[in-house]
Amino acid sequence: MRPMSARKRIRVALVGCGTVGGATARILIQDKELLLRRSGVEIEVAALVDKSFDHARSLGLPEELFCSGIEPVLADPSLDAVIELAGGVEFPRTLIMRALDAGKHVITANKALLALHGPELFARARQQGLTIGFEASCAGGIPVIRAITDGLLANEIDAVYGILNGTSNYILTEMIHKGSSYADALEQAQKIGLAEADPSLDVQGGDTAHKIAIMSSLAFGISPDFAGIPVSGIDDLDEQDVLTGRDLGYVVKLLAVAHRHPQGVAMWVGPAFISREHPLAWVEGPFNAVSIYGHAVGHTLFYGRGAGGDPTASAVISDVLGLALGITPTIFAHTGFWPDRNGGATQLPAGSEELRFYLRIMAEDKPGVLAAISTILAREQISIASLHQNEQARGQELIPVVITTHTCTRQALDRAVQEINALEITGKEVVLLPIVDEHPEKIS
Amino acid sequence: MRPMSARKRIRVALVGCGTVGGATARILIQDKELLLRRSGVEIEVAALVDKSFDHARSLGLPEELFCSGIEPVLADPSLDAVIELAGGVEFPRTLIMRALDAGKHVITANKALLALHGPELFARARQQGLTIGFEASCAGGIPVIRAITDGLLANEIDAVYGILNGTSNYILTEMIHKGSSYADALEQAQKIGLAEADPSLDVQGGDTAHKIAIMSSLAFGISPDFAGIPVSGIDDLDEQDVLTGRDLGYVVKLLAVAHRHPQGVAMWVGPAFISREHPLAWVEGPFNAVSIYGHAVGHTLFYGRGAGGDPTASAVISDVLGLALGITPTIFAHTGFWPDRNGGATQLPAGSEELRFYLRIMAEDKPGVLAAISTILAREQISIASLHQNEQARGQELIPVVITTHTCTRQALDRAVQEINALEITGKEVVLLPIVDEHPEKIS
Repeated sequence: MRPMSARKRIRVALVGCGTVGGATARILIQDKELLLRRSGVEIEVAALVDKSFDHARSLGLPEELFCSGIEPVLADPSLDAVIELAGGVEFPRTLIMRALDAGKHVITANKALLALHGPELFARARQQGLTIGFEASCAGGIPVIRAITDGLLANEIDAVYGILNGTSNYILTEMIHKGSSYADALEQAQKIGLAEADPSLDVQGGDTAHKIAIMSSLAFGISPDFAGIPVSGIDDLDEQDVLTGRDLGYVVKLLAVAHRHPQGVAMWVGPAFISREHPLAWVEGPFNAVSIYGHAVGHTLFYGRGAGGDPTASAVISDVLGLALGITPTIFAHTGFWPDRNGGATQLPAGSEELRFYLRIMAEDKPGVLAAISTILAREQISIASLHQNEQARGQELIPVVITTHTCTRQALDRAVQEINALEITGKEVVLLPIVDEHPEKIS
Repeated sequence: MRPMSARKRIRVALVGCGTVGGATARILIQDKELLLRRSGVEIEVAALVDKSFDHARSLGLPEELFCSGIEPVLADPSLDAVIELAGGVEFPRTLIMRALDAGKHVITANKALLALHGPELFARARQQGLTIGFEASCAGGIPVIRAITDGLLANEIDAVYGILNGTSNYILTEMIHKGSSYADALEQAQKIGLAEADPSLDVQGGDTAHKIAIMSSLAFGISPDFAGIPVSGIDDLDEQDVLTGRDLGYVVKLLAVAHRHPQGVAMWVGPAFISREHPLAWVEGPFNAVSIYGHAVGHTLFYGRGAGGDPTASAVISDVLGLALGITPTIFAHTGFWPDRNGGATQLPAGSEELRFYLRIMAEDKPGVLAAISTILAREQISIASLHQNEQARGQELIPVVITTHTCTRQALDRAVQEINALEITGKEVVLLPIVDEHPEKIS
């Protein structure tokens, strides 16, 4: 038996010592021997950079590493990589550009930054012969970037479906199981520390959209136009629809969808009904999951914690080890699906994809209501798959008419809904949710 | 923007052109441009080796590559790697040893071979400075070897739970949903080509045991004693227990379990009840899944097709690409958890782990029955968690007494069961199944 190859060494600085940064620093320092034993890599933490070190102190991180500015880090010639866990967009963008210019590799978990400026940052890294690691950016601890760029490298990817926001998934799970309103479920999520005081980036779908933009760029070799991705959130979801969907055999999830068609890739983010039989329907509470469909492998699904200090640190540190071992740089340098290497984007226009839909129309219980609605749908060539209307309860002015459609475009449906909203016999706005059926596998 | 790094090239020969070998060859040849575009690697197939080429011909594979012996392959100095997809144990063992001696890297999907002779083969590869890729050996298309050895490299692995045999999982799904007997469900699996005429390796747990032995070696850095893994199959499972379990909130699965305790790793394979809430309970039909619990990442789960030509080819080809890119060799050379590098195994003795259990005792409806059973259990310090006995139906001689226990060792329970079986008031053998609760996450 030959001895193990000589150990590899890497010297890193962490910028940002919050939840993820603090957990990463703690594991890098406390579990140094474990990491060396498993990976053959010795990691040296050179500095922890932040404005405040209250959290770092509470974790017992060594004070001698605390550093209140990035200049000493960028000026340290022995530093191999900067780990950016500061959050925000403009500060980390400048930091990363400067780190690359100073010859440092970069690791980041910053999905907003990569969704908005990924190609620019990747191109700069390449000019410098450096690597950006971002395993932690899309699904916390789930190694999904490696799945797309390495494990499933033999596949043409057909589709990616993700539950990518743990806060939203927790809120929806509460609404489904307890029949809670959105407001009550959000309050519960805030109480247990899963939702922030301002939860908008989570519940309005922005965070999910950042993540699907990054994954799509790698899965399909496109440069997504982030502003062109239609995004809706769960914050105006009515528990009535959650429960009606459940009766119809569906589970509501905040889904990110990217689906390759011959003409281009369709992408959208929003609450949607998926069949109770679909594996994504099982993903409950704060967990995340990504379904990836490849032309050879068929359906694969990757599940785990999409946020939180320790789980995200697991992904950040896998990038540190990947850098030291040379794995991440090899993938970054040689493979062909990076957004800075792709030509023109082939993203389909919003709403042009054929989907099935759920509609809830609040209508008066009068003759001609169904005729009016169905005439409008027929004019847009929208075929009704099922229609449910219960008898009027005492004192109820408007009764819900629930329709599921066969496939049609969102564009056509939006036109029909506009007309239905304008009818005198309907009240409130029509509620509209896509229905996502099991994606067909193409394996032979 | 810099141009893409120079393309890498690799020249491979395939030995074995059956289901997996044929699919692998077809994708390597037909999708050569796709693979080059995604990976930057140009793969050249030098030869397809088999005794019969009927299947290869039916796939339209090029006749000029057909080769009926391995000698020309081993003698080809320009060949980089041999892909062993022949099956069996002795032939591939010799083939792989000779390929390594001839300076060729090796890729194999052969779980039996690696479970029985992995350390010897890995050590030989290392002596030669070569690599063995085996992503396809444990879970078909699911990139679970990469998850353990790369994506989750920052973690101390606490436990691995797997549904690793698609044939068995299909049979169990039929039994659960349709109440079929084992025999009927097996016949159905054979009818649709999922089960072989002799299904013993699948349904008796041997295949699953091979796979958990390989994964455990990497997850825990041990050299499992394969013969020391307790293995039972689904072939004597009674539909009565499947349905009773369902009523109790459990789903029966053929599980592989490897669980790190302070004293060592407990491993076993067999049918077990898992809670309907556990993500592994969702895995239906021929799909496989592996739950991995890491000290930082918590619970992760990897799901997909664990068998079949195209899905397994996806994993085989990821190893071809990984070899050409240098990823697989780096992991193989530098990381520290390989069975040929591990010292003494720390595998716990069979049956020494504390688990919960389900018992079904067929007993006469007489005074003293429950007293006799509960006295025996009490003597072994086995605490009863629940007990179910329905009123006797007309004409029924023996009635089922269903007991679930608190945690106890299998060794203690086996002693109790032996005594219960010997009672005059009980008929048939006691049925005994482990109950697997959700594994606790250790993340902070």
